[in-house]
Amino acid sequence: MASKIASTKNVKNQTALLAAGHWLMLSVAINVGFLLKLIHDGNLRIDWYGLHNGQDNGGHLSSYAAEPKPDGQIQNKYINLDHGDPTMYQSYWKQMGDRTDVVISGWQSVSYFSDTKTVCWFLEPGFANAVTRLHKLVGNAETGNRHIVVGTGSTQLFQAVLYALCPYDAPEPMSIVSAAPFYSSYPLITDCLKSGLYKWRGEVDDFNKEAPYIELVTSPNNPDGSIREAVFNGSGQILVHDVAYYWPQYTPISSRADHDIMLFTLSKSTGHAGMRLGWALVKDEAIAKKMVKFIEISSIGVSKDSQVRAAKIMDVINDSYEDSKTSNESKRFFDYAREEMAKRWSQLREVVNKGQAFSLPTLPVGECNFSHQTFATQPAFAWLKCEQVDDCESFLKKHKILTRGGVHFGSSKKYVRASLIGHEEDYNEFIRRLSLINSVESP
Amino acid sequence: MASKIASTKNVKNQTALLAAGHWLMLSVAINVGFLLKLIHDGNLRIDWYGLHNGQDNGGHLSSYAAEPKPDGQIQNKYINLDHGDPTMYQSYWKQMGDRTDVVISGWQSVSYFSDTKTVCWFLEPGFANAVTRLHKLVGNAETGNRHIVVGTGSTQLFQAVLYALCPYDAPEPMSIVSAAPFYSSYPLITDCLKSGLYKWRGEVDDFNKEAPYIELVTSPNNPDGSIREAVFNGSGQILVHDVAYYWPQYTPISSRADHDIMLFTLSKSTGHAGMRLGWALVKDEAIAKKMVKFIEISSIGVSKDSQVRAAKIMDVINDSYEDSKTSNESKRFFDYAREEMAKRWSQLREVVNKGQAFSLPTLPVGECNFSHQTFATQPAFAWLKCEQVDDCESFLKKHKILTRGGVHFGSSKKYVRASLIGHEEDYNEFIRRLSLINSVESP
Repeated sequence: MASKIASTKNVKNQTALLAAGHWLMLSVAINVGFLLKLIHDGNLRIDWYGLHNGQDNGGHLSSYAAEPKPDGQIQNKYINLDHGDPTMYQSYWKQMGDRTDVVISGWQSVSYFSDTKTVCWFLEPGFANAVTRLHKLVGNAETGNRHIVVGTGSTQLFQAVLYALCPYDAPEPMSIVSAAPFYSSYPLITDCLKSGLYKWRGEVDDFNKEAPYIELVTSPNNPDGSIREAVFNGSGQILVHDVAYYWPQYTPISSRADHDIMLFTLSKSTGHAGMRLGWALVKDEAIAKKMVKFIEISSIGVSKDSQVRAAKIMDVINDSYEDSKTSNESKRFFDYAREEMAKRWSQLREVVNKGQAFSLPTLPVGECNFSHQTFATQPAFAWLKCEQVDDCESFLKKHKILTRGGVHFGSSKKYVRASLIGHEEDYNEFIRRLSLINSVESP
Repeated sequence: MASKIASTKNVKNQTALLAAGHWLMLSVAINVGFLLKLIHDGNLRIDWYGLHNGQDNGGHLSSYAAEPKPDGQIQNKYINLDHGDPTMYQSYWKQMGDRTDVVISGWQSVSYFSDTKTVCWFLEPGFANAVTRLHKLVGNAETGNRHIVVGTGSTQLFQAVLYALCPYDAPEPMSIVSAAPFYSSYPLITDCLKSGLYKWRGEVDDFNKEAPYIELVTSPNNPDGSIREAVFNGSGQILVHDVAYYWPQYTPISSRADHDIMLFTLSKSTGHAGMRLGWALVKDEAIAKKMVKFIEISSIGVSKDSQVRAAKIMDVINDSYEDSKTSNESKRFFDYAREEMAKRWSQLREVVNKGQAFSLPTLPVGECNFSHQTFATQPAFAWLKCEQVDDCESFLKKHKILTRGGVHFGSSKKYVRASLIGHEEDYNEFIRRLSLINSVESP
């Protein structure tokens, strides 16, 4: 593979760290089976949404509203950092005024079809162009000789990839693996319909590596921000790269990612989660066609309205960097976003370092080919460890901070994942509460 | 059930007709298994999209472009009536000028969340209001004491229903049945991932009717426009009503549908297929919650942009009927659409009746509570029978008319489904070619 996001050495160090007991390794297969049963039975604690049914908050969703609270009220409210809702970016887009407005008329989006000349017949040409332009600008992914497949978020694309790669007539479901901690939605999506095509195996190492299996490589990783490469290395290995966070606000762009199958999402690039839009860059035409087939069967395409809007937003970003004369640098999206993430990580590390209650992973420093800045990976999530309690999620919940516990990521209860890309008010209150806890809990 | 779309007697007559050999009944289970294999292996003839790989048209998708052709060229082109692309409605929405325009700014659709107080937390309140208003206006469905669940088309909602109704721990997959001819996508969606939760059984009658099973009741039916009720009548019956075509342009609205689970789609109501938007009206809160859970797992919600646009379009329709002073009746959507469908059906029946090559089903006449007009069901598709050849689809293909053969609907090759809601140019050319065939083939 021509381009590597990180050196193999880094990955091996990271793997060694994992193995060294830094995390309490749990039996992933057993956990996931149990968790899926819980979910399907309606005990929904461990889902994406973080629905805390009937517990001490009164069990009402409105307690977790994503909107910021009026001043003075926030201190008694739950702060929901369970999901990566990218509302941090909203204030930037408000500053942009009407530059990103789109007008859509009633006669538009009538047909199922966008472009019958391409493999992905429901892909809007304007969206495809904007995606290609943005990757060229940022330099984070190779787009040449690749098919773009648009999906209803990268979540749908993940399912499309599984459908495309797993033969319908195989005697056994294909194993889907990923090193822990892995994105908590992977096991849920993979096993929710008990598919005969594929089965989640998580981090187990005893599957047949000679037979075809799929390894998910998420880099930077969700939840812990680590820079990753494949770790299982069997001869049957098929790699899928989830590069949702390989953008210059989260990590230095060291090279153009050049993998066979790469998944991106608008939620974490421009911050438009509500559009439900993702895209895959796929080398092999037969795989791209099967992915398109899955999206055809499961939703007959992808919202054209969101594609039109996304194209506009990406092109405004592209224009702002390409036309240096008319642009004010402080208004360029990735600079704004990188600085905001840097500020938040600086505050977080400062408050964590002031006591003994918590710790954070050390993340690699590098120079970014896009911004020409040197900085450490500053992920969208904090992978926070409670140093003095066993169940970090429950502990923080007592302090009205909602996070997602490590068990959901195939890791230990001593860890939680906390979103850092929410509204500023919520973020500031999170920092205030962490500071308070640290001063009380640290002797 | 308080309200019935048609009397049981009608349904029994229809069932008897089916049984009398009017269709050549095929072994549904075997066909479907074979078809799924074909699809998964990449021989994609029988898919939704109608991709005729490498055949006499040169195998290129552009031959089937949904856009109308310039005058003079159409006579040598393939006319694609394989899919129900509702481009017929586009000219209406163009007439409406800027009345249906929406402006969406860059700071909108940032959050995953729409309304955390409702069961369906990704449902835009404006869209929910517009849906309720439209059903009240048309009188086609009861909305009281029901949850609205929005989906990426009714296709995603169908999967959400299966997920919600089928227990995760059952020893056997639940049987999914529907009387033939049934919508060709049902078996594809149901079996595409070889789910352990459910399995397509189609029209087979030998499954255990004491155990829970799901019967899909599509009324008016896709492909044949018949008005339907449940036919299997076992004690384990769970009904799902696909009422995508229960709108006053296709059939007289005889009463408010009042079923437990009803599926609607924007594609066939207002004609906006490209938005990929559907909604379910669901009585049982636990079922609605599980449907929401499926949509959360499989796509983390539904495009907000499309919901915002759909709300605007529905509200323009609502306003046009509610404010009789400011509205010109000729510009009311359902009147326009009913008249256009009536015109097309009149042309079609005329050309079919002029010879012996084809026949069409007789469809029930009724008075519409909405329009107060009396008319026969005039479906979005023609369920056309070739009277003199065995393979109607191949026969029409020689005449460059692409349709979907009866086998895909669990029926006979003597039938095809042809879309009647495409561009006017294509429709007129279809009528011209049918007329030509009829004059040549009829002695």
